[in-house]
Amino acid sequence: MNMYTDKRADFYKDRYENRARLIIKCPDQPGIVSAISTFLWNEQANIVSSNQFTVNPKGGEFFMRLDFEYQPGTNVEKLKKEFQEVAERFQMEWRLSLVHELKNIAIFVSKEPHCLLELLWEWQSGDLMANIPVVISNHENSREMVEALGIDFYHLPVTKETKQEIEAKQKEILEDYDIDLIILARYMQILSPTFVEVFKNRIINIHHSFLPAFIGAKPYERAFERGVKMIGATSHYVTNDLDEGPIIEQGTEPVSHEHNVDDLKKIGQSIERRVLAQAVKWHLEDRIIVYGNKTIVFE
Amino acid sequence: MNMYTDKRADFYKDRYENRARLIIKCPDQPGIVSAISTFLWNEQANIVSSNQFTVNPKGGEFFMRLDFEYQPGTNVEKLKKEFQEVAERFQMEWRLSLVHELKNIAIFVSKEPHCLLELLWEWQSGDLMANIPVVISNHENSREMVEALGIDFYHLPVTKETKQEIEAKQKEILEDYDIDLIILARYMQILSPTFVEVFKNRIINIHHSFLPAFIGAKPYERAFERGVKMIGATSHYVTNDLDEGPIIEQGTEPVSHEHNVDDLKKIGQSIERRVLAQAVKWHLEDRIIVYGNKTIVFE
Amino acid sequence: MNMYTDKRADFYKDRYENRARLIIKCPDQPGIVSAISTFLWNEQANIVSSNQFTVNPKGGEFFMRLDFEYQPGTNVEKLKKEFQEVAERFQMEWRLSLVHELKNIAIFVSKEPHCLLELLWEWQSGDLMANIPVVISNHENSREMVEALGIDFYHLPVTKETKQEIEAKQKEILEDYDIDLIILARYMQILSPTFVEVFKNRIINIHHSFLPAFIGAKPYERAFERGVKMIGATSHYVTNDLDEGPIIEQGTEPVSHEHNVDDLKKIGQSIERRVLAQAVKWHLEDRIIVYGNKTIVFE
Amino acid sequence: MNMYTDKRADFYKDRYENRARLIIKCPDQPGIVSAISTFLWNEQANIVSSNQFTVNPKGGEFFMRLDFEYQPGTNVEKLKKEFQEVAERFQMEWRLSLVHELKNIAIFVSKEPHCLLELLWEWQSGDLMANIPVVISNHENSREMVEALGIDFYHLPVTKETKQEIEAKQKEILEDYDIDLIILARYMQILSPTFVEVFKNRIINIHHSFLPAFIGAKPYERAFERGVKMIGATSHYVTNDLDEGPIIEQGTEPVSHEHNVDDLKKIGQSIERRVLAQAVKWHLEDRIIVYGNKTIVFE
Repeated sequence: MNMYTDKRADFYKDRYENRARLIIKCPDQPGIVSAISTFLWNEQANIVSSNQFTVNPKGGEFFMRLDFEYQPGTNVEKLKKEFQEVAERFQMEWRLSLVHELKNIAIFVSKEPHCLLELLWEWQSGDLMANIPVVISNHENSREMVEALGIDFYHLPVTKETKQEIEAKQKEILEDYDIDLIILARYMQILSPTFVEVFKNRIINIHHSFLPAFIGAKPYERAFERGVKMIGATSHYVTNDLDEGPIIEQGTEPVSHEHNVDDLKKIGQSIERRVLAQAVKWHLEDRIIVYGNKTIVFE
Repeated sequence: MNMYTDKRADFYKDRYENRARLIIKCPDQPGIVSAISTFLWNEQANIVSSNQFTVNPKGGEFFMRLDFEYQPGTNVEKLKKEFQEVAERFQMEWRLSLVHELKNIAIFVSKEPHCLLELLWEWQSGDLMANIPVVISNHENSREMVEALGIDFYHLPVTKETKQEIEAKQKEILEDYDIDLIILARYMQILSPTFVEVFKNRIINIHHSFLPAFIGAKPYERAFERGVKMIGATSHYVTNDLDEGPIIEQGTEPVSHEHNVDDLKKIGQSIERRVLAQAVKWHLEDRIIVYGNKTIVFE
Repeated sequence: MNMYTDKRADFYKDRYENRARLIIKCPDQPGIVSAISTFLWNEQANIVSSNQFTVNPKGGEFFMRLDFEYQPGTNVEKLKKEFQEVAERFQMEWRLSLVHELKNIAIFVSKEPHCLLELLWEWQSGDLMANIPVVISNHENSREMVEALGIDFYHLPVTKETKQEIEAKQKEILEDYDIDLIILARYMQILSPTFVEVFKNRIINIHHSFLPAFIGAKPYERAFERGVKMIGATSHYVTNDLDEGPIIEQGTEPVSHEHNVDDLKKIGQSIERRVLAQAVKWHLEDRIIVYGNKTIVFE
Repeated sequence: MNMYTDKRADFYKDRYENRARLIIKCPDQPGIVSAISTFLWNEQANIVSSNQFTVNPKGGEFFMRLDFEYQPGTNVEKLKKEFQEVAERFQMEWRLSLVHELKNIAIFVSKEPHCLLELLWEWQSGDLMANIPVVISNHENSREMVEALGIDFYHLPVTKETKQEIEAKQKEILEDYDIDLIILARYMQILSPTFVEVFKNRIINIHHSFLPAFIGAKPYERAFERGVKMIGATSHYVTNDLDEGPIIEQGTEPVSHEHNVDDLKKIGQSIERRVLAQAVKWHLEDRIIVYGNKTIVFE
């Protein structure tokens, strides 16, 4: 852990001392909100914000994200145990977390550093509520700026032959740093299915096109060939179908005949930075729920 | 009532037959959501969507908008009476309405018809959930297109001398048509304080600038003189301080040195159309709550 | 010709009396601008605006759009003949037109009238510099609003069997009205290759997706299935490859998990209106040059 | 000079070896374009891009920005001398520069580093065509990140008493580094009139509101009080009337009732970064011409 991480943890502990968050998924039926809010009221907890969504209003699924302040001195473990009774009644999948407990992020990057830089910039200025203990790259070029921030940097070049071995090494690092979320910040290697499986819905990628347009390689080149008047970027959770995972956020910018492929890349970089950082923030604040191949994003 | 209005009423009655909406404002305290949701659960009602907001989390005010489906055959008047008990416990200001009961709109317009046309367009294509029985103008030029839609049109020119008399006539018309909401769709006359008082938070105006920039007359001319690179429009509730009422929505578009005043007006018209129509829709769906000189908009 | 058309023609004749426009395409080489501007100077003409673009700066193609004011009393036919000498020297494809000479538009539409309405709205308020003498539809439902504006309306339903015969009828109408530009304002029939060939680069279509995403049928349904966070629309010239013609303009809007397919359609309609109207205006002002399967748009 | 600066200079020298740029302002009259383009043709130079604009078409002023490639081995000083004859004929104010000659930037900053960081980020990744040899601040906190990039950092705290003396010191530094452009990247001190006079149209400021709304101090606080639904930022040249100088670029973002003052600042920072960086790039590429209190921006 580095200096930034320690300061951050203290700051959030102070600010969100008694703040907890409940994420819920269950079959829709009358009485859910009543049961939850009555439970919290009995604990003298105060609901700070609440979002809900029902897929297919009749007979569908119910999703909720709810922040509350509990009474100082509350035994949160006991509270969880008691909530279990409510949860079982409604067949809930649920998770109760303390808002000041920060997630640990590992960033994977290849040669182009713009997305990495954006994340580090946001983090350094206190806008990413997370710890970033480690960056892993198949190139050396970002080492200096990463280490300057007190973040560990691992250079793990990948070849066809070493791929399996490198992934083993990566997993070891991820375990060592107790990583909750992996960000592929323009990491140009494809992860193996077993790797993806371990981190299901916990790997966020940025694809440099407006999916499903220009799936796969060289999207800016193909956008130029087609003569589009807008380009875009897409952040999504990684699945084993290339560029087909649940979409989190997308952005676009206008372009014109005056722009060549290099111009498109340049304009695209600023979209990528924005769209990836947004997705990461939403994930860190538990605003994203994956259902099927889609996401619910409680903005 | 005209053909469009009748069809619309039938359509919404069908679609939202058992849908009700609760708007609530009260001092914040623990237990509010629990009390409301438990009340609804006891009535076997199902919460369809719910938004809440607290101004100043500690010791502040609580606002809620909640849509629910009640059981077919429910006696809504009895339900209201029973809710009164909950409301009193929490000192609520509240309103329970049936979603299919449409509001009646009167549109005031002067010479420029673009905002009127946008509203009629949205209404005709079924996107404005309201009745529009009457249009009032101090000019004749919009009569034809209004009457073609089966809407009554009153030409009431205003002079300094006749102003009081005309307002009396306007009020009479508004009563005759049982008007809930007045839209000033580029109506270039200032309404008297007593008129405004009667329709408090029920008159929506569109101002052709990005308030508080260019308050008052000739905003596009002044924007041109200043050499701004963006122009805008603002929809707001009318108060007796000119262009100072609670803002509902704002929009902007880029402009350049190539645009003269006429170009700014043209670009501005499309912003005005969009920003006014958005505000009107939010009002019709009870998404706006005024507090102090601001609005809460539950999008 | 109807009342609107006549008024419009007079207005533009007055405003742009001595304004001409030169569109040029030729192999790039030094001296082109010098030759053109010197020619105009010798005619005592004043260049009002000028745009140029070179594809592949070295050894590529040169494109230019230039507006100029000629001296009152200038013999434009003579001027054209004299320019021919310059044009030949540089192997130009060129066109010189008088700005006040309006193009004649035919709008094709099926059941959904939103794009038609937008165009008529823009036209009626003087923002489309064109004549619109005729609308052709395979449905009856837009007749009333079209004829109310003094525009002729032809109801030509299309079946597999009658397709050829109907196209013959359509061509006849287009000739009768001396049509320069066809707009497919959500016209859900595919035109035959020979029809398209006759009106090469003079048929503008609006496709209800962000091409090349969701080519073909039911784009909103497929966007919903994929869980995208933005939808879009694309205006393009029609070629015989479905949705593959040169793109003129594209637009996008954000959407969320709260939107169902109907919501996407509604949001999409406003993008379609905007994107189609923009493309039509650019075409009418001769701002678009097609090269290969792309467009140069001199904004 | 630092490592980045040297590499940059080499890169641009290579890329734009024979590229020159002509900026022209003169009374409008026929024959200007002809004279310029014929002059260039006689030099066997090739026009790469060209923009022109006339304020008040009849009897107004003509502005032009023109990039051209000259023949290798051309004596540019001689070319300038010969162009002087053309310039005099049309009473031109003009400037001919070599595109690869980079301008020298000094950045002034106070405590908030987000705008400084954005500029350094853009510069480091090769997107700002300039040298940045020096940063001047009245606070210490940015020293580390500035010096890490090989840029000199001067900490010059300002008090009422020392203001004059500090400005003298600043001017000395600006001369030592041969500075062409000063960027006030959230520098919270007001420069004296004599200082501003020396750098007329060469000091770019970012104001954290959508001017002319919220001129002066604490714009985000006032925006919050007013309950606006959009906030913005404005980049402009500094004059001696506070926040009244010629506007270069503006940007806006939507906000809602859920945002407190801190949220507005955070959202605003990203607008400020974007709007300032855009203005700086346009200045560096000589795309901005000031006339009166407005700017022409040849995008």
